[in-house]
Amino acid sequence: MSSNTPTRRLNIDNVNPHVRAAKYAVRGELAVRSEEYRAKLSRGDTDLPFKQIIPANIGNPQQLDQKPITFFRQVLSLMENPKLLEHEDILLNHLDYKPDVIDRAKWLLANVGNVGAYSASNGAPAIRQRIAEFLERRDGFPAKQADIYLSGGASSGVNTLLHVICEGPKTGILIPIPQYPLYTASLSVLNATPVPYYLDESKNWGTDLEAIKKACADAKAQGTDVRAIVIINPGNPTGASLSEDDVRSVIEFAREENLVLMADEVYQTNVFVGEFVSFKKVLRTMQKEHPGVYDHLELASLHSVSKGMVGECGHRGGFFELCGFDDKVQAEIYKFVSITLCAPVIAQCLVELMVNPPRPGEPSFELYDKEYNGIYNGFKERAHALWQAFEKMEGVECGEPQGAMYLFPTIKVPLKAVEAAKKEGRSPDEFYCLKMLEATGVCVVPGNGFGQKDGTLHFRTTFLAPGTEWVGTLVKFHEDFMNKYR
Amino acid sequence: MSSNTPTRRLNIDNVNPHVRAAKYAVRGELAVRSEEYRAKLSRGDTDLPFKQIIPANIGNPQQLDQKPITFFRQVLSLMENPKLLEHEDILLNHLDYKPDVIDRAKWLLANVGNVGAYSASNGAPAIRQRIAEFLERRDGFPAKQADIYLSGGASSGVNTLLHVICEGPKTGILIPIPQYPLYTASLSVLNATPVPYYLDESKNWGTDLEAIKKACADAKAQGTDVRAIVIINPGNPTGASLSEDDVRSVIEFAREENLVLMADEVYQTNVFVGEFVSFKKVLRTMQKEHPGVYDHLELASLHSVSKGMVGECGHRGGFFELCGFDDKVQAEIYKFVSITLCAPVIAQCLVELMVNPPRPGEPSFELYDKEYNGIYNGFKERAHALWQAFEKMEGVECGEPQGAMYLFPTIKVPLKAVEAAKKEGRSPDEFYCLKMLEATGVCVVPGNGFGQKDGTLHFRTTFLAPGTEWVGTLVKFHEDFMNKYR
Repeated sequence: MSSNTPTRRLNIDNVNPHVRAAKYAVRGELAVRSEEYRAKLSRGDTDLPFKQIIPANIGNPQQLDQKPITFFRQVLSLMENPKLLEHEDILLNHLDYKPDVIDRAKWLLANVGNVGAYSASNGAPAIRQRIAEFLERRDGFPAKQADIYLSGGASSGVNTLLHVICEGPKTGILIPIPQYPLYTASLSVLNATPVPYYLDESKNWGTDLEAIKKACADAKAQGTDVRAIVIINPGNPTGASLSEDDVRSVIEFAREENLVLMADEVYQTNVFVGEFVSFKKVLRTMQKEHPGVYDHLELASLHSVSKGMVGECGHRGGFFELCGFDDKVQAEIYKFVSITLCAPVIAQCLVELMVNPPRPGEPSFELYDKEYNGIYNGFKERAHALWQAFEKMEGVECGEPQGAMYLFPTIKVPLKAVEAAKKEGRSPDEFYCLKMLEATGVCVVPGNGFGQKDGTLHFRTTFLAPGTEWVGTLVKFHEDFMNKYR
Repeated sequence: MSSNTPTRRLNIDNVNPHVRAAKYAVRGELAVRSEEYRAKLSRGDTDLPFKQIIPANIGNPQQLDQKPITFFRQVLSLMENPKLLEHEDILLNHLDYKPDVIDRAKWLLANVGNVGAYSASNGAPAIRQRIAEFLERRDGFPAKQADIYLSGGASSGVNTLLHVICEGPKTGILIPIPQYPLYTASLSVLNATPVPYYLDESKNWGTDLEAIKKACADAKAQGTDVRAIVIINPGNPTGASLSEDDVRSVIEFAREENLVLMADEVYQTNVFVGEFVSFKKVLRTMQKEHPGVYDHLELASLHSVSKGMVGECGHRGGFFELCGFDDKVQAEIYKFVSITLCAPVIAQCLVELMVNPPRPGEPSFELYDKEYNGIYNGFKERAHALWQAFEKMEGVECGEPQGAMYLFPTIKVPLKAVEAAKKEGRSPDEFYCLKMLEATGVCVVPGNGFGQKDGTLHFRTTFLAPGTEWVGTLVKFHEDFMNKYR
């Protein structure tokens, strides 16, 4: 093409092919379509068969009816406007601020400073110190602030880690399937190789060590340099919560294959069945039990303010802790995060509040505890209500809710539906989810957005939306769908 | 290496070589060293020859004594804790909140929603609409919210744009030298090719069209697919502010070579000499003057809450506007930003406040105007005080301050200093800046962190620090340095 041809320089065929290849279904076609419907509804259009959009496609609790935790937001309001601290009497006596709210804001202002200034690239030292103390309490093992990196949500932390770990197209990263598509999308952008391992649906989506071993061996046989394994625990989209034995066996496997462990633990407090056990705790325990054997293992574990009972997605706060990383590799990570300067400082403060919430006996504890438990119980109830609805639906199977914010049922649809989907150039699960959106206003994500075994179909739905009416519309839609295509 | 060798998996030789190759001097060795000194000072150590660190290495005004603008922070405090709106009388009568603060918070809550929820990937529609209206007022030409993308500071916007624009190692991007190192660092991570063009120091660091043409032609002759030109206006690190004629000639050049224009305009309000003219305004004017000739040109222009009189670096807010981009390319940009979900929502609100501040006659206007002008005049005074100090220093040359937050003087050091630097394995400018830090506690960035013509030496300093004492210590240091190495 001559340099003077008056056409645009960029087109779909010459932009970055690795970006083009990336897929991110959570905010894909269905989400865009649901926004169009929402706009129609808000214009007053009445020709849709539903009155509201239920955005069950994304774990975004405060988009629905979840209220922020009062203590957190009160402190943040003082961080944004420290001049309010000149009126302590009014705050305390007329605006429902408790003394520990004021104390915390003063501590943050003294130790972090003005939220309008860049912090250190890896986050404010005082906040990293508080995170280290939280990790020590959680795991019973030491943690160092120098190993902690604040990030703009866990997504940005994953992006950083994969950027440094991946050497090139030959680098393989073991990724659970189904998975949160951030992983495959980031690897696509990086032009590295995802090495999928299937979770075991028959065991409530637990890890299947044989499947992991086979995936790794097959990839190595094809010349892939497999160098890390991602574990999402509790699982997204599956909700599965791993037992300590499962975690041990993954660590043992990482030792055998000399793999970096990447533990995405953002749902660590969203556990309904069993108990969350961190990779850090199990790794340190194994290191203690067998001196020298596991000492060289590298673990990066991620956490976030977006999930749990905090649910502060919009603030974009998170962090990761590194265990066992080489200093020079850490220096590269530090440099990488420096390029975009630092995580939002107000979100860093929110991370501090999350890891160091009011304790029993402190003035804000009672309300905090009530709000926290209210959110937790609400999740559990909604999850069970949705699960019970799935139990009633023909050809739908779903394990008991275990954790995270999602259910990931299997669906079996009639052959006629498969054919109708094919005619539209869609996979059967996409077709099913689209019909669901068109009929009910409920937006979920087709299983193929997360990966699923060939021949199986699923969808992911959050259980965040309030009320049970929308659950009823799903049951009705499913019955109609099955009858139509039977 | 056998898979069972008990050594770490990652080391400096096998991590991503493109990350390894990236350089980011603004937060490099000197910044790290200055933090060590700061820690020493705060421990009460008295063996350093200075009592405080002056972080003149980074444009971070609120780290120094700049106060946030009251209107902005009052609104944000209400966004963080909307329950305060239940007490309007107290806010108005006892806490210095004006009615327009309350109205704005209510508008944002109604139109953007809870700041704890993810927004649309490209930013809240209501905020993009306000940005479009601001751009229309600024430029006198239409703007559309669909072409606007909120980002986590302008850095994240640059990262997005370069990710989509760069097809591979052959992609060349014209970058001014000296430049803000975000550009070369991002291109390094992406494994694309920076094509440096030198700014003309003799013309106060303006663009030199012949230099741009030559850089482009040379790169093309070597097989580089030059597809975009970055312009930083006002300049970083140079402070230069381009005239409309300069902007026109760059656009004309972009037409001739069919290049995407990337205009980094984050310092658009930091102008002391002349007037800021946006690329958008000039492009639209040229399109109107010559129908059809410039219509195919693509422009991405960036803005931020971190600079200007806002100075809210820690919030990580910014946006870019696209003009003339293909819809499918925009869809790739949308998908790319979706992978990390959205920019911090509280920072998006701050962008709205920046582009739509109180207007004359509104209750908060008087204070806003006073604060805004106070910051502007403070910048100007400090810039001039520093410039006058440079005028006194032997072998230091610096143009009159024009804009941005920086001065970028040339220094000439004696041969003995060059040799002493070489002995330490440093460039002479690094050596000079390190000695300055050791003697005065003032941290600046050596010119080689931004790029400079061979044989020339510079450093970049902000003019944000209050007082004149530190300026005096620079004069003294320089004299001692020259005497020592003469």
